[in-house]
Amino acid sequence: MNTEHIKELFSTVKQRRPLVHHITNQVTINDCANVTLAIGASPVMAVSTEEMEDMIKLADALVINFGTINDALYAAMIRAGRAANKKGIPVILDPVGVGATRYRTEKAYGFLQLVKVNIVRGNSSEVNALIGGEATTRGVDAGELSISNEELALQASKKLNAITVISGKQDVVANDEQIIRIDNGHEWLTNVTGTGCMTGSLIGSFSGATDDWFAAAVAGMSVMSLAGERTKKQLKESDGIGTFRVKLMDEIFQMTGQIWAEEVRLS
Amino acid sequence: MNTEHIKELFSTVKQRRPLVHHITNQVTINDCANVTLAIGASPVMAVSTEEMEDMIKLADALVINFGTINDALYAAMIRAGRAANKKGIPVILDPVGVGATRYRTEKAYGFLQLVKVNIVRGNSSEVNALIGGEATTRGVDAGELSISNEELALQASKKLNAITVISGKQDVVANDEQIIRIDNGHEWLTNVTGTGCMTGSLIGSFSGATDDWFAAAVAGMSVMSLAGERTKKQLKESDGIGTFRVKLMDEIFQMTGQIWAEEVRLS
Amino acid sequence: MNTEHIKELFSTVKQRRPLVHHITNQVTINDCANVTLAIGASPVMAVSTEEMEDMIKLADALVINFGTINDALYAAMIRAGRAANKKGIPVILDPVGVGATRYRTEKAYGFLQLVKVNIVRGNSSEVNALIGGEATTRGVDAGELSISNEELALQASKKLNAITVISGKQDVVANDEQIIRIDNGHEWLTNVTGTGCMTGSLIGSFSGATDDWFAAAVAGMSVMSLAGERTKKQLKESDGIGTFRVKLMDEIFQMTGQIWAEEVRLS
Repeated sequence: MNTEHIKELFSTVKQRRPLVHHITNQVTINDCANVTLAIGASPVMAVSTEEMEDMIKLADALVINFGTINDALYAAMIRAGRAANKKGIPVILDPVGVGATRYRTEKAYGFLQLVKVNIVRGNSSEVNALIGGEATTRGVDAGELSISNEELALQASKKLNAITVISGKQDVVANDEQIIRIDNGHEWLTNVTGTGCMTGSLIGSFSGATDDWFAAAVAGMSVMSLAGERTKKQLKESDGIGTFRVKLMDEIFQMTGQIWAEEVRLS
Repeated sequence: MNTEHIKELFSTVKQRRPLVHHITNQVTINDCANVTLAIGASPVMAVSTEEMEDMIKLADALVINFGTINDALYAAMIRAGRAANKKGIPVILDPVGVGATRYRTEKAYGFLQLVKVNIVRGNSSEVNALIGGEATTRGVDAGELSISNEELALQASKKLNAITVISGKQDVVANDEQIIRIDNGHEWLTNVTGTGCMTGSLIGSFSGATDDWFAAAVAGMSVMSLAGERTKKQLKESDGIGTFRVKLMDEIFQMTGQIWAEEVRLS
Repeated sequence: MNTEHIKELFSTVKQRRPLVHHITNQVTINDCANVTLAIGASPVMAVSTEEMEDMIKLADALVINFGTINDALYAAMIRAGRAANKKGIPVILDPVGVGATRYRTEKAYGFLQLVKVNIVRGNSSEVNALIGGEATTRGVDAGELSISNEELALQASKKLNAITVISGKQDVVANDEQIIRIDNGHEWLTNVTGTGCMTGSLIGSFSGATDDWFAAAVAGMSVMSLAGERTKKQLKESDGIGTFRVKLMDEIFQMTGQIWAEEVRLS
């Protein structure tokens, strides 16, 4: 893992200002747009199937999030995904809630058949369901699995032929050649909605600014975990998830390659 | 009213972590998800008609909110509502804007015919329109009515055969046997969008953790009013609704049965 | 420009509490609702085509925002726009992303043909695309143009026969008789999503409370720019766009005609 390269990515994103097209969910769409701006990229979140090709012409990365998927959004996802594949920009898939309902699982399989996904980011249950494992997703939360996140990420990255990011107590990023563990984070990141979705946006932002998508995935995942850790440290006893959420955005906005390199714990 | 039971509900929610399925509006969907997490429950907000039965299998409560209703969402609401009835989990209806347009009023009547609603929560105009009273809803705001919130809640609870929660200067919770007045609150709760919708989520969270849905309704309504009151007290003169909204979420996150029991004013 | 009149508008909005109907985007819909409340008006954001006429009966202004437009929303926009024209309430159009995709550009032309727009608010690329200029919109960001914002606003106001508001380093408001430059603002306003959309809501709020829609457009645009400037001044070095966004809402909530008259820089 070339951490020096990731360190430089922070300023690369701000210079290139990649356009990150999202087809995402209603719940966290505002957070996704703001976190993309916070890291220095430019978000766009069009939903109409008919404008997907035009938007992808302008885009540097595509983030697909299943949070509040329906048939109309799914059609847009397919159109955008295929255009992104053709153009060669990275496609990031966040399979929110896959495994919780058959509808989501089927749509996810369909998407994987029609679109080449470059980076998958989910919790362990979602990634497990994506590779045909038993469904343990409870709504949008991870259930218990018999294998470790590391094993699962390795299996998934092979099976899906995609960089696989699993967030959890310990985050992991794997492709068919390597696996990185990220030991930053704080449990409060699971107490607010959208930290997973925003991680997808961060990965999209980094991957739109470099050809090294593995580094981009590590960067995006570790920025969220490190920012969560740093945010919690500053809070007062009386603060709760309202303040945490606001200052998390501040931390991401203020994060530099320097801060990241000094405080990230990769192995 | 067994306040000791409500006091204990705060930790029960955190232990059981009920899954609260929402079919809600685009405006406040993020606030609803975060407030559900803040009180210790788990939110899910799927919208596809086809996955409603599967999602209800996992859910402990269902919150239906009419804020940005359209035909597709209405179809999902009916599917989810009927599945919830079959499973026996509580259905909470927030008839946002009912009375303002014929579309909403008709959809609300349709919903009440096809789904057994266990708890209704709205402002006085909305509840009045729901039981066939004259329409006075102005957009999503309450208009003037000739009867008191208490009378209206009693009438509505009988007519709808549902626990009825009316929020206003004085909040009331009624069923066919009893009525509770909550004397907490602050007018700033009407200066930010979503406090009503979030009250629905809180009621959903509590009712997903106990069989005493009347207690859950009192708990959910009073947590919002008490948190609003406590939040306003801490603000500086220069603070506005931006800060109020953030700290309101902090207050709800920090609220315990102990704080609630000491400061709630029920009669 | 009668600044004394604008100064009084702040209390007029709070007294009249105009109902501002929005058909807007999923990304910033919550911010739009809250900023409408912050300035003292009342927001409503219904989306169903079938209820548009009923909602317009209650409304004092209509804000149309193209952010996440699709065919269903477009149909609702047309219905609402025509009803608003008939009633004589102001129609404000925010052509988000027009010029970025043919779909958006076509829908914008269609809207302008079927609905009389009274006030247009956009960045320079969007306004340029709206009057048939070359497309330079990159996602939702402004590209470079060969003419100044002032020239463009004058051209657009003539061509569209509408008050035209262009936000940028220098904001301008023009109609066929006059042009006003606003020299307040801060670049951080472009670092958070929704400040443009919220400006549309502010213009809608003011124009729903007065017949002088030009004054309302100047008021709405300048409140956002002045509030951004005032907010940035209060921030600590460690604050980022999370805190900026929260305090921006506070500033708008706290703004009075007095503060505005003392600090606004019009020319």
